[in-house]
Amino acid sequence: MTRDPRFDILFEPVRIGPVTAPNRFYQVPHCTGMGNIHPHTLAAMRGVKAEGGWGVVNTEYCSIHPSSDDTHAPYASLWDDGDVRNLAAMTEAVHAHGSLAGVELWHGGQRSSNVLTREAPLAPDSMMVELNPWQSRRMDRQDIANLRDWHRAAARRAIAAGFDIVYVYAAHTYLVTQFLDASTNRRTDEYGGDAAARARLYLELLEDTREVLGDRAALATRIEVYDESGAGREERSALLARAAAFVDLFDVTVPDYGHEMGASRFVREATLEDHVAHVRGLTGKPVVSVGRFTSPETMLSQVRRGVLDLVGAARPSIADPFLPAKIREGRMDDIRECIGCNICYAHDGLGAPIRCTQNPTMGEEWRRGWHPEKAPAVTGRADPVLVVGAGPAGLEAALTLGRRGIPVLLAEAANEPGGRVTLEASLPGLGEWARVRDWRVHQIGKLDNVELFPASEMDRAAVLETGVRHVLVATGSLWRADGRGRSHPTGVAGYEDPRTLTPDRILRGARPAGPVVVFDDEGYHIAAGIAGMLAAEGLEVTFVTAGKVAAEWTILTTEQAGIQAGLMERGVRIVTSTTVGGLVPGAAELVCAFTGRVSRIACEGFVPVTSREPRDGLWTALQDAGLATLERIGDARAPGLIAHAVHDGHRAARAYLAPDGEDIIRRERVVIGG
Amino acid sequence: MTRDPRFDILFEPVRIGPVTAPNRFYQVPHCTGMGNIHPHTLAAMRGVKAEGGWGVVNTEYCSIHPSSDDTHAPYASLWDDGDVRNLAAMTEAVHAHGSLAGVELWHGGQRSSNVLTREAPLAPDSMMVELNPWQSRRMDRQDIANLRDWHRAAARRAIAAGFDIVYVYAAHTYLVTQFLDASTNRRTDEYGGDAAARARLYLELLEDTREVLGDRAALATRIEVYDESGAGREERSALLARAAAFVDLFDVTVPDYGHEMGASRFVREATLEDHVAHVRGLTGKPVVSVGRFTSPETMLSQVRRGVLDLVGAARPSIADPFLPAKIREGRMDDIRECIGCNICYAHDGLGAPIRCTQNPTMGEEWRRGWHPEKAPAVTGRADPVLVVGAGPAGLEAALTLGRRGIPVLLAEAANEPGGRVTLEASLPGLGEWARVRDWRVHQIGKLDNVELFPASEMDRAAVLETGVRHVLVATGSLWRADGRGRSHPTGVAGYEDPRTLTPDRILRGARPAGPVVVFDDEGYHIAAGIAGMLAAEGLEVTFVTAGKVAAEWTILTTEQAGIQAGLMERGVRIVTSTTVGGLVPGAAELVCAFTGRVSRIACEGFVPVTSREPRDGLWTALQDAGLATLERIGDARAPGLIAHAVHDGHRAARAYLAPDGEDIIRRERVVIGG
Repeated sequence: MTRDPRFDILFEPVRIGPVTAPNRFYQVPHCTGMGNIHPHTLAAMRGVKAEGGWGVVNTEYCSIHPSSDDTHAPYASLWDDGDVRNLAAMTEAVHAHGSLAGVELWHGGQRSSNVLTREAPLAPDSMMVELNPWQSRRMDRQDIANLRDWHRAAARRAIAAGFDIVYVYAAHTYLVTQFLDASTNRRTDEYGGDAAARARLYLELLEDTREVLGDRAALATRIEVYDESGAGREERSALLARAAAFVDLFDVTVPDYGHEMGASRFVREATLEDHVAHVRGLTGKPVVSVGRFTSPETMLSQVRRGVLDLVGAARPSIADPFLPAKIREGRMDDIRECIGCNICYAHDGLGAPIRCTQNPTMGEEWRRGWHPEKAPAVTGRADPVLVVGAGPAGLEAALTLGRRGIPVLLAEAANEPGGRVTLEASLPGLGEWARVRDWRVHQIGKLDNVELFPASEMDRAAVLETGVRHVLVATGSLWRADGRGRSHPTGVAGYEDPRTLTPDRILRGARPAGPVVVFDDEGYHIAAGIAGMLAAEGLEVTFVTAGKVAAEWTILTTEQAGIQAGLMERGVRIVTSTTVGGLVPGAAELVCAFTGRVSRIACEGFVPVTSREPRDGLWTALQDAGLATLERIGDARAPGLIAHAVHDGHRAARAYLAPDGEDIIRRERVVIGG
Repeated sequence: MTRDPRFDILFEPVRIGPVTAPNRFYQVPHCTGMGNIHPHTLAAMRGVKAEGGWGVVNTEYCSIHPSSDDTHAPYASLWDDGDVRNLAAMTEAVHAHGSLAGVELWHGGQRSSNVLTREAPLAPDSMMVELNPWQSRRMDRQDIANLRDWHRAAARRAIAAGFDIVYVYAAHTYLVTQFLDASTNRRTDEYGGDAAARARLYLELLEDTREVLGDRAALATRIEVYDESGAGREERSALLARAAAFVDLFDVTVPDYGHEMGASRFVREATLEDHVAHVRGLTGKPVVSVGRFTSPETMLSQVRRGVLDLVGAARPSIADPFLPAKIREGRMDDIRECIGCNICYAHDGLGAPIRCTQNPTMGEEWRRGWHPEKAPAVTGRADPVLVVGAGPAGLEAALTLGRRGIPVLLAEAANEPGGRVTLEASLPGLGEWARVRDWRVHQIGKLDNVELFPASEMDRAAVLETGVRHVLVATGSLWRADGRGRSHPTGVAGYEDPRTLTPDRILRGARPAGPVVVFDDEGYHIAAGIAGMLAAEGLEVTFVTAGKVAAEWTILTTEQAGIQAGLMERGVRIVTSTTVGGLVPGAAELVCAFTGRVSRIACEGFVPVTSREPRDGLWTALQDAGLATLERIGDARAPGLIAHAVHDGHRAARAYLAPDGEDIIRRERVVIGG
């Protein structure tokens, strides 16, 4: 294929101070859950981004000093020569593909708890750290002088590690922001008071960094266009104009992280434009910003209309590291678009390398040697594989097997492929999740060796009738009606009642009579989504959760506050730290998790969201069928996130006919004397 | 000093199968927050325990396979030769002092989320993992066979690493327990059903492990004496008797981890006795159990009366690694007793190496070279140091300086030393916290070179009058009355009201009129403690918290459920996810954190618990006084946990007159090619 010349502009080089980006595709700094704990994993992942065409590839937040320690969240660091060596591996991997490497120097101030280093957090004032019951130290003059020294030293190490772009980081409520923002800076010395005084530290860091970098690297800054309160745009604009004297590139955003980084449930593509469009004119310097851009047309429009010089992306580059290459080659339809579920970010929050619902190879580049675009082709003629179930696991397995050159029969009981993805994407706000299905169905459609058989319910006999001797059972799971889950491992007899409807039945159109009780014993999005949907339809809904808030796990995906507010605005009553002990005539019995006290609430419809039963009956039935290979994958194996299902389908497809030892998982950790 | 011969029995060797413990002091397996991430830190810490006289020193939970991965909580592992090498460093450190080293082989089953390894969790059934919205895979026969292979392989690696004792771990709701317990094992094959079937896997693992170990190491098992439901003691007793054929040592406990590991707020010393006293007679094998034993008399009694053969300890060995040595030397009064605050466990939960309120050297043995009993003596005559404030930081600093041979003047404004420790220990259930004060005051009393001056408020002039040119300002902090904190960084004008009383005033005896609103914006124990105390005194109390539950941070210390239940039982109304926007006549205005909706609640007394103001005025006043050294320490520097204050006092005392570079903090992490 050839590229559409309209998109040539995206492939123009862009001068950024002393360096030149080969194109306009700019992977902004983003969390990885890898940081200084997993340097091999990190370097390989960043290298794949460059290989996929990202002209600039940045680190995540990179600590300049042990007084900025975010443990348990993994972060990069440039504290010493060992860090230089580790990050040099990243810059080498990026440079190998002709891209530039950038580093986001970071000090967390009162936001980092420093549980590993045990240093006192530092800030303009003594204030609470983010999540723990202790406070920062109010920085004195010596602390500020030290901070400048540390920042200069980190910039020198960045040069030593081979970085082409070095950030001064003035966003996301970290230390510099704490000085800039009047609400957190109450100092009465030369670093606090009016706008100029609050900006002093920032401008000093810019000047210091510029001096260190000279012409060896570009100076970028990440900064918000107004302050936390939403006000101060004029003040901030004046500061941006002033900063332009030192800065080669403005990476601009808004202070609402839930907007910048919003899930697709709440935020669509390119919503920062109105906030940042003035920066280019204001500063006369190149500007980059994000917007979960996955559409080439949108990117083009941003550049053409002079909003941005560089198209910033974090999540789109995670979902598809080869997004730029695909545009270059005119393969627009091959772009694997981010669905905005924020499972990536959630895993950083869990202290583990990020993963991606759409891209099962994310984080596996070094450890398992998985490449996002290539899977080893079989040599010679391969026996066909029957994949039963075209949900996320089955679709991914069929696609990857097909790409490897293996003939695939993909049987789906329903009339359409998609499985749980289709059901969940029908919940309010989750429409983009259907991309998991749509991208795979489209890609499979391009393969001659994969045939999809819809409306094909498969039992043991039907499987054997195909004559195929390699079977992957991807038949998914069903929500349990019996209450089994964390709160009630053996289930609840009192749920056996005509009022009880499982999430699957609701998502397939069944509707309870009101008043409805939704019981969330799981904590992710399904129960809250159903409660909100039923309330929007006019039913009286009580949301009972064993968790501390509604949809507690979605704190990790940035969705929780919005979900709970949405439920409350729709009139849903929320009862936390409580379980449903059973149904009695006209009511549900609620049990307080702390005291065991029982109360009753009117209930004519009941939706328990507790756990799922794997649908592995076919797999069991085939155990003695003498098949050559037989495996259950995805939810049929272990019900989980959609990301689990996709990853498991991918794993199984790569493992099929793989030489022994192909799937060795490498480990990186300290070995004493090693 | 010489030892009291009554205690000789504690120093008798104890035969454990093929090995012999040199005495009865047994450090049971306990979490460290170090695990396979910090192997140097771990080995040094365990070595210090052996040096202090613990006859047996165990690892924490040690994963046998990547399908048991507790990330972000750190855990040990024996997956491969690198692990063998790392843990060999621990066994060598332990053996160097003549002690035995043990390893607790572990598989988490459905409790480990496997976010790092991305393996499907394994369990007898497909059930929810502990904290995340995904499920285990129901183990098939092959999975069970694999598990046994992995366990055998891990036992072989344990031998290779030099361990003398190897555990089969059947407690704490991990995999083996999931099979043993009827509520989690619904299998209908030979591994589920009646008691014998549910016990099959456990007995197989015992047999497998015994076979691997032969006479090269003892086989220990950690097991609960009844099951999760509290029932099943008879069944479990039969199992223990049967297991005795393979087992050399029973490490027994109860299924309620909040009891075994209870904070001193709820659980006293030696409360497991009634639960475990039968095991010795039942099995005919040596028995160990815990009970937060810090009293030599209690230990003696447990052994004399035949309850235990070995005195198990986790937290007491953290608070005082030299506890056995001190008993041996008759220095009972030198034992630094655990206060049961569970700050150790909380930091494991935070993904960081454990620390200890009482023992500031815990976790710093390798990294900073700190020894719990030794600090470098000054050479020659040292100038005296004035320590202002005898709270936890000041007491620790004065003690450590004194032990280094430095003359210390310790000035305290109040009539008695203790500072915040005295205040907080007066809250219901926290009496043991006074040990932080009492132990230090007693130790200081033994030193000729430290003089305590009570009732000595020090201002600039008073400091200069002493003529001392080295000053540590340890004047603590005061709770803010203006509402500044996480929810309101600039404070709340509406808190300026005669009804407002700070926690300090309450703890010093002031009492509000009722109804009282306590607003917790901090999340640790103070607000809940005050609310409970006022309610117990008969006041009508509403506890408003910005958190998701009352005292949310105490989830990490295992106290939260008990604290919230206690408040509810005392009639305290709890309002979560809500802030107090201000006081109006007769009422407080509450603001919903999700919707911003405002409501009112009757309020005649108001206690805001938001953040603290460091009392560093003296430090500021002395800036230009020409002192040789001047430092603020503890809460005056950065208000925090008592553990922070003690650690900071210790740090400052070691740093004083230390040669340059003495306080280098070593780091352990992966370096590529390093």
